[in-house]
Amino acid sequence: METLAPASTCRNARIRIATDRPTAFIDITDRLEALVIGAGLRMGLVSVQSLHTTTAIVVNENEPLLLADFAALIEDVAPREAAYRHDDVTARQVNVTPDERVNGHAHCRALLLGPSACLNVVDGKLQLGRWQRVFLAELDGPREREISVVIVGECAR
Amino acid sequence: METLAPASTCRNARIRIATDRPTAFIDITDRLEALVIGAGLRMGLVSVQSLHTTTAIVVNENEPLLLADFAALIEDVAPREAAYRHDDVTARQVNVTPDERVNGHAHCRALLLGPSACLNVVDGKLQLGRWQRVFLAELDGPREREISVVIVGECAR
Amino acid sequence: METLAPASTCRNARIRIATDRPTAFIDITDRLEALVIGAGLRMGLVSVQSLHTTTAIVVNENEPLLLADFAALIEDVAPREAAYRHDDVTARQVNVTPDERVNGHAHCRALLLGPSACLNVVDGKLQLGRWQRVFLAELDGPREREISVVIVGECAR
Repeated sequence: METLAPASTCRNARIRIATDRPTAFIDITDRLEALVIGAGLRMGLVSVQSLHTTTAIVVNENEPLLLADFAALIEDVAPREAAYRHDDVTARQVNVTPDERVNGHAHCRALLLGPSACLNVVDGKLQLGRWQRVFLAELDGPREREISVVIVGECAR
Repeated sequence: METLAPASTCRNARIRIATDRPTAFIDITDRLEALVIGAGLRMGLVSVQSLHTTTAIVVNENEPLLLADFAALIEDVAPREAAYRHDDVTARQVNVTPDERVNGHAHCRALLLGPSACLNVVDGKLQLGRWQRVFLAELDGPREREISVVIVGECAR
Repeated sequence: METLAPASTCRNARIRIATDRPTAFIDITDRLEALVIGAGLRMGLVSVQSLHTTTAIVVNENEPLLLADFAALIEDVAPREAAYRHDDVTARQVNVTPDERVNGHAHCRALLLGPSACLNVVDGKLQLGRWQRVFLAELDGPREREISVVIVGECAR
């Protein structure tokens, strides 16, 4: 009896989300799992990348009070009401748009949290621990947001 | 004379670690290097992903006083003794377990540090600078912990 | 009419940068885009990894006042003038070099920001949103720095 060698595969998708608050954590785990199944991925990586400078991708427990704790922590580290030079349109010399938002705090929070996560897939399953979920962290909503997903690895031939 | 084209490869492994303190940085670099050699990987990526919501994967120097400095910094940013709503079991509505730990600080620290690292391999070697080492950051120990590793790229045929 | 199946590819490169200040954000997006084109990558991942313990890779807007805001934030979180045990050469027992730098703050900042970014490529293009740029964050310059880049995925056959 012979097993066919697996074939390498590479797929991509976009996830679109309309957020409804200034700060929010939107659980995208189910959508990522559906993409892994749709790609027929057996083993490999799922790279999840936000396409914005005021959002992040984070992984932790989907427990609302915890997410509120973390929202309070980032408010403490980069307060919304602090003075950011990025928000001084009289001093700004690049990238000034007509609809410029007061969002220096959100950029700083995004820099701390990071724009992406690279997740493992084994036996066709996203490798997540019992409490792990994947979130888009909205840091300057409400906005229309977009996430790029690339899947690389082996599928069954 | 002809060189055979390399073959694409994809492998996975688990690393298990029993931690012995509340906060600890466990150097897993040697284990990752052994996995790269075992897979015969010539060039590609090693994705190292913690499967817990109160651990992280970090990369820096294995110098005990530095790691103590960093432990002090995260205690400053997310103090163990601060009030986390996640730790108020009378208010919690989801995911409450019989052995619920008081660990809001550890979740917040894990969210800041991130659950994973994606490392490069070239010429069969993990690409790390002179002082770089890879650590499991235990943030709510002592516990039994598990790390998923996926290796993708090219091996010699 | 038949489409040829794509071939899997894996390439690597190094980016070298001489930084000229203690803290700096060097935009490496154009160099990464040139590497993607040079590799003929159609779809896949670009893993960008700093090889130092006092630098990081970050993704955000290339707006000088914002980058100054973020430099101020990390100075707040891990002040240069704070007391780091890593900087006490009388207490240090490992990795002490003759030219040891006073850089505990820079290590701590690097630990918070992370050493790498994994970026998506689709249709031959680095997937970056309108304002997203990729930076080497220098945290203990001026220094000679080196970044490892590994590209995996599919190229046109």
